[in-house]
Amino acid sequence: MIKEKVLKTIRKFSLVPPGSKVIVALSGGPDSVALLSVLLELKNELQIEVEAVHVNHMLRGEESFRDEEFVKELCRRLKVPLTVKRVNVLDVSKGRNVEAVARELRYKALYQVLKERKGDLVALGHTASDLVETVLLNLTKGTGLKGLRGFLPKRDVFIRPLFEVKRREVEEYLKERGIPYVVDSSNLKTDFERNLVRLKVIPHLREINPSLEEAFLRSSEILRGVEDFVSSEVEKLLKRFFKGNTFRVPISELKELHPYLLTELLSEAYRRISGRVLSHRKVNEIVSLIKKEGFKSFIPDKGFTVYKEQDYLVISPEDKRGDFYYQVETIPSEVKTPLGILRFSLNRGEPVVSEEGFKKAGIIVRSRKPGDRLKFKNFSKSLKKFLIEKRVPATKRWELPIVEVEGEIVYIPKLYKKDLSLSGNFVGVEFESDGGSSDCASGDRKES
Amino acid sequence: MIKEKVLKTIRKFSLVPPGSKVIVALSGGPDSVALLSVLLELKNELQIEVEAVHVNHMLRGEESFRDEEFVKELCRRLKVPLTVKRVNVLDVSKGRNVEAVARELRYKALYQVLKERKGDLVALGHTASDLVETVLLNLTKGTGLKGLRGFLPKRDVFIRPLFEVKRREVEEYLKERGIPYVVDSSNLKTDFERNLVRLKVIPHLREINPSLEEAFLRSSEILRGVEDFVSSEVEKLLKRFFKGNTFRVPISELKELHPYLLTELLSEAYRRISGRVLSHRKVNEIVSLIKKEGFKSFIPDKGFTVYKEQDYLVISPEDKRGDFYYQVETIPSEVKTPLGILRFSLNRGEPVVSEEGFKKAGIIVRSRKPGDRLKFKNFSKSLKKFLIEKRVPATKRWELPIVEVEGEIVYIPKLYKKDLSLSGNFVGVEFESDGGSSDCASGDRKES
Repeated sequence: MIKEKVLKTIRKFSLVPPGSKVIVALSGGPDSVALLSVLLELKNELQIEVEAVHVNHMLRGEESFRDEEFVKELCRRLKVPLTVKRVNVLDVSKGRNVEAVARELRYKALYQVLKERKGDLVALGHTASDLVETVLLNLTKGTGLKGLRGFLPKRDVFIRPLFEVKRREVEEYLKERGIPYVVDSSNLKTDFERNLVRLKVIPHLREINPSLEEAFLRSSEILRGVEDFVSSEVEKLLKRFFKGNTFRVPISELKELHPYLLTELLSEAYRRISGRVLSHRKVNEIVSLIKKEGFKSFIPDKGFTVYKEQDYLVISPEDKRGDFYYQVETIPSEVKTPLGILRFSLNRGEPVVSEEGFKKAGIIVRSRKPGDRLKFKNFSKSLKKFLIEKRVPATKRWELPIVEVEGEIVYIPKLYKKDLSLSGNFVGVEFESDGGSSDCASGDRKES
Repeated sequence: MIKEKVLKTIRKFSLVPPGSKVIVALSGGPDSVALLSVLLELKNELQIEVEAVHVNHMLRGEESFRDEEFVKELCRRLKVPLTVKRVNVLDVSKGRNVEAVARELRYKALYQVLKERKGDLVALGHTASDLVETVLLNLTKGTGLKGLRGFLPKRDVFIRPLFEVKRREVEEYLKERGIPYVVDSSNLKTDFERNLVRLKVIPHLREINPSLEEAFLRSSEILRGVEDFVSSEVEKLLKRFFKGNTFRVPISELKELHPYLLTELLSEAYRRISGRVLSHRKVNEIVSLIKKEGFKSFIPDKGFTVYKEQDYLVISPEDKRGDFYYQVETIPSEVKTPLGILRFSLNRGEPVVSEEGFKKAGIIVRSRKPGDRLKFKNFSKSLKKFLIEKRVPATKRWELPIVEVEGEIVYIPKLYKKDLSLSGNFVGVEFESDGGSSDCASGDRKES
């Protein structure tokens, strides 16, 4: 029964292509032991190789080594190649959340063994009964679409062939064949919560619906469908607006997107650029900023910037080459740039705009961009050419602060000043170099 | 506290425009009593009129009348106009599911009172704690996106001002002010299940997260966002492909849609045409039919047809005017049409196509469509003109069976036969009129 079910799951989700080497993550508990056994039974039919890996988290003292020994003996008996990895969670975690660290180290170990053993897939023992628990736990703690659908039958190199099998079926299978397994003493907080759900909550829900697993599997399937649809729509937009590691999209288009699609798009764009997940709160902050006329820039997280450039929203890493973009709105103001501080004040320093002009259009301080040109009395010149002539080293060219008024470059510290004839009050700028030297053109400045 | 929370909810979801008359559905239980009381407190601030309606389901004998009396007394004291409706669920249900009938009759009664009292909105007493229970129940029984988000703060004329209030807050509010309420003895199956969730399941989940309501409200909000996005995408497509009461869409476009969007689109199109909800199974059946080359037509439910016409998928009611469309694939065949039966057989009746031609292209029997033309020896003529000349009454023109081969009309019973020069075996047709008379052109045939 369980064998046929696993085969059906494997086919339905295309979990295991013929010729694969599958490495079973074997804790020694009933699920992973049953998984190993079933996969061995299906080995010929599926044309796969089966190995095992045991990750010893060393969190349960003696018991951890008892489990390790059990797994070794089992694999010896079944003639399955086994790799054991010991990870010392407590040593590494140092006050961090033990569950999170254990999880991180476990996946790292699994990837490593996959590589060492030249495996294709790691098979995990999660069952449909685990799905029920996971979804209930997620729902209880607060979650979105992904949490409500629970784990996936396949993700990256990880497959879950027991995805549609119930715990009861696993237990019957093991009992019928007399296959031994170990029982894990639970002493992690996540285990406590999961046991509460498993032992106190689910039995009552089963009174209402004995086919609880089927119900949750069906919901999960529907939500996977929704999620996949949303992802495909997000993907279409990402394709259009990603260039290199920068996401650049006309604000008018963003405004026309459905609010849900917009938040998904921004989250995903940010994730791709930074490799980090942006909190809902911060995504909503960006969404509300987009709508504001005066929005200039926002640093959601160290190292990354969201800013408005003309009528575009840009999300980009603040890397060494570092695009940057600030709008000066009040006088006096200080703007920190990669090479130093620009101080703007009334009637002091190099004049860049009249007081009136400033009130009308403000001042922008930004990094250079392709196509920048400088105006001289009778001619104009590309900024690139100008910087080459001035022998500004290429690595430094992207760090130069460009001061712009109404779309025209008016000032670059120590390098350029637009010819202005200003009468009356003016806004002026002073530059204080990071290195103490005020020479932007000098190529020997050290990276700080 | 609860007053401010309700006000916030009302503003957040724009539940009550100023000047509205709101009719509170008052069972006499704590939630609806608190709702009535809070709305009375907010009456001036919101500039609304408040009334009440009590629906007595007469399902709990004496207790039903005790509740009715309680509600009458309460409204007398609060000087709130009250309408009482008694509905005899047991009389009406006759073996049908009592809960479903009670629900149906309750909503019917509420609509009726809304009309009688010239009210704008019906306020329901559901709280955030009810949302937790509802979502858990739905999840337990198996559900999709809508079931996981639970009830809405606003839907049609129904509003739920306590949407973000917890049961505990309701109880505290009533206790503080010494407001009396009745306690419902539960004897319906739905009450049993709900009580199980409320008393046995939720307390354990609250051990994991004391802010359970907040977590569920947040999930619900996310899912409402997803749902709204999907609806807006479906709406765009419906707008393009609906004409009158018929949905007609190029199959090539359907094939390019994401599977989830496709099923949502078909479900919603069908719901608009028929007023009925199509089961998931039937929607999936249509989806798989679309992919099949040989698909012709499918009756998902009496009175409605899904069929392929050229490269279009059509969903339409099979009404009196009745578009119809069949493909004859085997010989002999009988096709039932609104005016009678067409019998196709080898070398019998009026020849319509050679045996070879039939094997290649088949025969289509369909109702006329705009742009149809007939070919004569040296000219062609619009079918419409032809039917007018033949004095076929307008009401009957849509019922005529048109026999088509390779895009050309070859036969209309008693009215038209294309000039064919066939040698060898042929497929012929015989027509048997429903009325016994074989005269399609006769205008005096009675509707059957």
